[in-house]
Amino acid sequence: MEIKPGPLLAEIDSPDDLKKLDVRQLGQVCQELRDYIIDNVSVYGGHFGASLGVAELTVALHYVFNTPKDQLVWDVGHQAYGHKILTGRKGSFHTNRKYKGISGFPKRSESEYDTFGVGHSSTSISAALGMAEASRLKDEKDKQHIAIIGDGAMTGGMAFEAMNHAGVSNSNLLIVLNDNCMSIDPNVGALKDYLTDITTSQTYNKVRDEIWKLLGKISKFGPNAQEIAAKVENSMKSFLLKQSNLFESLNLRYFGPIDGHDVNHLVDVMNDLKKIPGPKILHCLTVKGKGYELAEKDQTLWHAPGTFDKITGAINKKKYDKPQPPKFQDVFGHTLVELAKKNEKIVGITPAMPSGSSMKIMMEALPDRAYDVGIAEQHAVTFSAGLATQGMVPFCNIYSTFMQRAYDQVVHDVCIQNLHVVFCMDRAGVAGADGPTHHGAYDVAYMRCIPNMVVSAPMNESELRNLMFTASEHNGPFSIRYPRGTGVMPEWRTELQKIEVGKGRKLIDGEELAILSIGQVGNYSLAAAEDLKSEGINPSVYDMRFVKPLDEEMLHDIFKNHTHIVTVEDGCIMGGFGSAVLEFAADNNYKATVKRLGIPDRIIEHGEQPQLHRECEYDAEAIKNAVHQFISHKEPTV
Amino acid sequence: MEIKPGPLLAEIDSPDDLKKLDVRQLGQVCQELRDYIIDNVSVYGGHFGASLGVAELTVALHYVFNTPKDQLVWDVGHQAYGHKILTGRKGSFHTNRKYKGISGFPKRSESEYDTFGVGHSSTSISAALGMAEASRLKDEKDKQHIAIIGDGAMTGGMAFEAMNHAGVSNSNLLIVLNDNCMSIDPNVGALKDYLTDITTSQTYNKVRDEIWKLLGKISKFGPNAQEIAAKVENSMKSFLLKQSNLFESLNLRYFGPIDGHDVNHLVDVMNDLKKIPGPKILHCLTVKGKGYELAEKDQTLWHAPGTFDKITGAINKKKYDKPQPPKFQDVFGHTLVELAKKNEKIVGITPAMPSGSSMKIMMEALPDRAYDVGIAEQHAVTFSAGLATQGMVPFCNIYSTFMQRAYDQVVHDVCIQNLHVVFCMDRAGVAGADGPTHHGAYDVAYMRCIPNMVVSAPMNESELRNLMFTASEHNGPFSIRYPRGTGVMPEWRTELQKIEVGKGRKLIDGEELAILSIGQVGNYSLAAAEDLKSEGINPSVYDMRFVKPLDEEMLHDIFKNHTHIVTVEDGCIMGGFGSAVLEFAADNNYKATVKRLGIPDRIIEHGEQPQLHRECEYDAEAIKNAVHQFISHKEPTV
Repeated sequence: MEIKPGPLLAEIDSPDDLKKLDVRQLGQVCQELRDYIIDNVSVYGGHFGASLGVAELTVALHYVFNTPKDQLVWDVGHQAYGHKILTGRKGSFHTNRKYKGISGFPKRSESEYDTFGVGHSSTSISAALGMAEASRLKDEKDKQHIAIIGDGAMTGGMAFEAMNHAGVSNSNLLIVLNDNCMSIDPNVGALKDYLTDITTSQTYNKVRDEIWKLLGKISKFGPNAQEIAAKVENSMKSFLLKQSNLFESLNLRYFGPIDGHDVNHLVDVMNDLKKIPGPKILHCLTVKGKGYELAEKDQTLWHAPGTFDKITGAINKKKYDKPQPPKFQDVFGHTLVELAKKNEKIVGITPAMPSGSSMKIMMEALPDRAYDVGIAEQHAVTFSAGLATQGMVPFCNIYSTFMQRAYDQVVHDVCIQNLHVVFCMDRAGVAGADGPTHHGAYDVAYMRCIPNMVVSAPMNESELRNLMFTASEHNGPFSIRYPRGTGVMPEWRTELQKIEVGKGRKLIDGEELAILSIGQVGNYSLAAAEDLKSEGINPSVYDMRFVKPLDEEMLHDIFKNHTHIVTVEDGCIMGGFGSAVLEFAADNNYKATVKRLGIPDRIIEHGEQPQLHRECEYDAEAIKNAVHQFISHKEPTV
Repeated sequence: MEIKPGPLLAEIDSPDDLKKLDVRQLGQVCQELRDYIIDNVSVYGGHFGASLGVAELTVALHYVFNTPKDQLVWDVGHQAYGHKILTGRKGSFHTNRKYKGISGFPKRSESEYDTFGVGHSSTSISAALGMAEASRLKDEKDKQHIAIIGDGAMTGGMAFEAMNHAGVSNSNLLIVLNDNCMSIDPNVGALKDYLTDITTSQTYNKVRDEIWKLLGKISKFGPNAQEIAAKVENSMKSFLLKQSNLFESLNLRYFGPIDGHDVNHLVDVMNDLKKIPGPKILHCLTVKGKGYELAEKDQTLWHAPGTFDKITGAINKKKYDKPQPPKFQDVFGHTLVELAKKNEKIVGITPAMPSGSSMKIMMEALPDRAYDVGIAEQHAVTFSAGLATQGMVPFCNIYSTFMQRAYDQVVHDVCIQNLHVVFCMDRAGVAGADGPTHHGAYDVAYMRCIPNMVVSAPMNESELRNLMFTASEHNGPFSIRYPRGTGVMPEWRTELQKIEVGKGRKLIDGEELAILSIGQVGNYSLAAAEDLKSEGINPSVYDMRFVKPLDEEMLHDIFKNHTHIVTVEDGCIMGGFGSAVLEFAADNNYKATVKRLGIPDRIIEHGEQPQLHRECEYDAEAIKNAVHQFISHKEPTV
C-alpha cells in the first residue's frame, strides 16, 4: 500500500527543501508530517505518540539549524520519525523497523543527519557535549550542537552528570527539553513535579504573593506602597524566575517554558538562541500523541500501539480460535502479585517500565509495595539492595539491555554483599524490531562472571513461575531472564513448585548426541529432536534451566554418555552458556565435541525474532544442521 | 607498635559509651579520634584526609542517632575510619586494610553498624532510601535513615536518580552533604560552583542587591523607601534562600550550610532534624584533612599518603640503590602526552581521577585537551563517544572496577557504533588493599562479549606504550587493561612500536606443555618456566597480548604442538581469557587438556596483590603446580 505525503512534504527530500519554504508554510508542513506518520504507523506499526509530539520541534530545528553540519542528537530516538522523513527517508519510511529496513531509531550508518545512534535513554547531552567540545578544539566556531531530550530521560543520572559538566564548559550546546510529562508511562519523581512547578510559574507566583503580602502589611507607608510593590514585582520577575531555576543552578542558561506546538514561535526562539553562545536549555511543553486525539488521551497505550485503523482508532488484534499463550511479561506480573500476596516481604521495582514489564499489575494490586522509580536503572538496583538489607525481597524488573546500565550496582551493591535481590530480565535475547540497541545479548556473559549470582532462564511460562517462586525463597542474588513476547502455554497458571537451584531437566533420553539449551530456545531443541527422530537420529535433549550454578551432576552424565554436544542459547556465544559448558568440560577433562549456537560476535540488526534466530543460526533448523554436521564428520557408526 | 587512644576514646567501645558523655566533652572526643586516626594511619597507612574531615560529623551522628537501629550509610566509605573506631573496632584498627584484617570500607559482614557495604561512589542515597522504604512498609515509625555523601559523590548520576525518587517519597531520610569541595582531586563541575554559591549566599546577596538597587531608583517615593527595602529584604531572606535552592527544587527540605566542624552545633541541628519527617538534606561545610595542617594544604597528596612521620609530615618512601620500574599509571600518563603531541586528535578523559590515573600529566601538559568530568563514568564514556564521532581520538581512562559503572555506554554508545574510543583500564585484576569493591576482576569477561571491542593487556611498560600507540591508530573501540602498581622495566621509555592487532608473542619455545597468559602475569609464566627448566621441564610460554581478537594463527600452532595448556590471567576465571581459549579449542575441535588459572568464582577480600595472587592461585608457584599436576596425570612419556 503506497502512502502519499501531502503536497508540501512531497517536495521535501532534505532539510534544504524545507528551508526554501516560507515560515508561514511550516504549520502546514507539520500537519502533513503528522499525517504521514499517522498513515504509516497505522499501517506498518512502530512508535507513535512520541514523534507526533515533536512534529513542530522537528520542523523548527531543521528549518533553523544548518543540518547536518549543525548536529542534532535525539535522546532515545523513538521520537525521530519526523526527523527521518525530513532527511531523505520518506521513501523508505514504510520499511521502518522491518527486517533489512530502516531502523526505528537514529543510526549513524543510515544517514549523515543521524549524528548519534540512540535507543537507550539519557545519552544525548553527553554525546552532544562531546561533539561541541570537538568543535571547540577544531575551532569550528559557528557549528551548533543540539540535544533534544524528554523530561523522562532527564531523570536518568547520566543526563545530570552531563549537565554538571556542560555547566562549566564554554561549549556551544543547546539542550531542548521536550517536556511532555511522560516516559512510556507517565513520568514520575521530583523533577517532574518541579518542571510542572516552573511551568505554572509557581515559584514566581509565590514570590509575587510574598511581596504583595508584605507590602500590604506596611501600608502605613501610604498610597505609594502599592505602586512600589508593582515595581518590585515587575523588576524582579525575570530575575527571580532565573535565580530559582534548577538548570540555572547548574549554570545552564534557561529559556522557557514555551509552547512546543507553536512552530513559528519555536523558529523565532531558536533563531535567537543560535546567537547565544555557551550551554543553554530551552524548555518546551509538548503533548505526546499531539494531533491524534486518542493518542493524546491514552499516551501509554499509544506509545507503540501496533497497527490500527486511523479513522476509528481501533487497534488491530489478531484473532484466534483457541486460547493463546500469554506474554512472558504478563506471567511475570500476575505471578509476582500471587507470590506477594503470600509473602509480605516481596516488593516490586521498575525503572519507568510499568507497562513494558507488566509491573503495573502489581502497582494496581498492591500499590504500596510496587515502585516506579523513573528512568533510573542504577538507583533501581541499589534501592533494591537497600530494601534487601532490611529483609524485604525485592523483585527488580529491568530489561536485559537496560540492566547494562546498572551493572556496577549489581556487582557492587548486590553480589558482593550477597543480598537477596531477584532480577527479572525481560527482553533477553534478540529483542526484535527495536534492534541492536535493545537486544538483550550479553546478560548471561556479564551476569555469570559475578560471584554469588544465580543465572537462570525458563523454557516456558510454568518454568518462569517456578523460577520466580524459587527465587523468592533463595537467600542471595538471583537472576531470571526471559524473552520478549509470548510463551508456549495457553494454560499457564500452573501450580507453583520450588525448583532445586542448579538443577536442570532431561527432556528426551537419547544417545550419542545431546542438545543442551537454556531458556525458551529449548522449544527449538524439542522441535529439532522431533524432526531428527524421523531421520532415525535420536539425540538427548536437556533444558539446563541454570547457567549458574550449572547442574554438574547432570553434566557428568551428559558428558559420560554422549560424544557430541550442541549448546543453544538466545544470547551471545562469546562467554555465554555454551562457554560455561566448555569450562565444565575442561575442568573435568571431558573430550566430547561441543558446538555452541547463539548470537554471534557481531552487531545484530533489527527484525522479527524468528528472522533473527534464523540469521544467527540458533533456531530448530540450525540445531538440526549442527547435528547433521556432527554426523557427517563422525566416524561411521555401526 | 601499640597505639594508645586518648582517655575518653579509651573508654568508648560502642556508641552507647559515647552517649554517656556530656555534650561538652564531645569536642575532646573529636580531638582524640583525630589523633587516633593520625597515629594509626601514619604508622599503618590508609586513607587519611577524608576521615579527618568528618570527625565531628561522625561523633555527632553516633551521639544523636540510635545506631545501629538508626542506619548510617557512608557514601564511598573511606571517610568511615572514625565510625569504625567508635563502633567496636578500635582494637582491630591497626589491621585496617591488611590481609585478613578489617576492611578499609564499611562492610556488612564486619559490623552491624556497617549497614551497607561501599567503596564505589554515589550509592548511599539509593541504599538509605531503600532502607527507609522498608521501615515504612514494616511500620517502624521512629527509625532514622541517614546517607552521608560528599559533594564529589553527589556529581555521580545515580545520586541524582535517588534524589528524584526521594523527593516524592514520604521516607524518613536525612542526606548529610559533606561539602569539602574535593573528590580525591578537587571536585569539578557546575554543582560544585553552585554549592559554593549557596555557601556564600550569593543568590540571596544578588536578590538583596536587586531590591536595594530598585528601591534606590524609586526614591521619589520618599524617605520611607529605604525602610521598605529593609523590610522587604528581611522578610524575603529565608524565603528566597529556600526557593532558589537546587535541592528544594527536588522537594528535599534543605538546611544549611552549617559548619561541619562545630560538633555541638551539629548535635543541636541533628536533634532538631530527627523530629522533622520526610526527605531532607543537611549541608555541612568541612575541610578534608582537618586538624592535620599539611593534609589541609595538599588534600590530594594526603588523600592516602602511605605511612609518614606524624611530627615532621615526611612521607615514607622506600629507598633503592638502582632505578625502579615506574607505575603503570605513570607510563600511561607520560605516553599519552607523547602520543598527543604527535597526534592532535588525541584527547584525554578522566572521571575524577586525575591523580589516580595520572591523567593529570596530560592535564598539565595539554590542559585544553584533557578533561576531568567529575565522578561521572557514564558521562565520561558517552562524552568520549561524542568526541569520536567528530574524528577525535579520546583516551578514556577508567579503573576496571569503575568501568562497570559505564558498561551500557561502552556497549550502546561506543561498540554498537564502532567508534574509535580507547579505554585504558587501570587497576585491572586484584586491586590490593582496597579489596572486593575495587578489584578489577570482571572486565575481560564483560568486555570481550561485546562486538567490535578489542581487549588487550600489556605484560610490561613497553607493551603498554606499544598498545597505546596501536590503539591510537586503530579505527574502533580498543581496551587496554593494566594492573595497579609498578611494572618490571626501570628503563621503560622504549621506542613506540605499532603492534598488529590480535598478534601475540612467543616468549619461550618449549614442548608438550604451553603456558598462555594475558597481561602482567606473563612475568609469573616466565618465572615458573625458569624454575621448571631446572627440573628438566621445558614448557612453551606465550604472551597473548590480546584476548580479542585472539591470535588464532598462534593458537593453531599451540594446540597442534602441545598436549597440555595452562592459561593464566589476573581476572575472573569464569568467562575470561581462559574461556576464550576454550572456545577457540572447541570451535576448532582441539582436544588438548586446558587448565585455567585466574580469579576464582568467589568474592576476594583485600590484601597485598602478591598475597591475593597466591590465594587465588595464579602466581608462579601456582603455574608450576598446574604443570606438575599435568605431568603426574599424564601417560608416562618416553
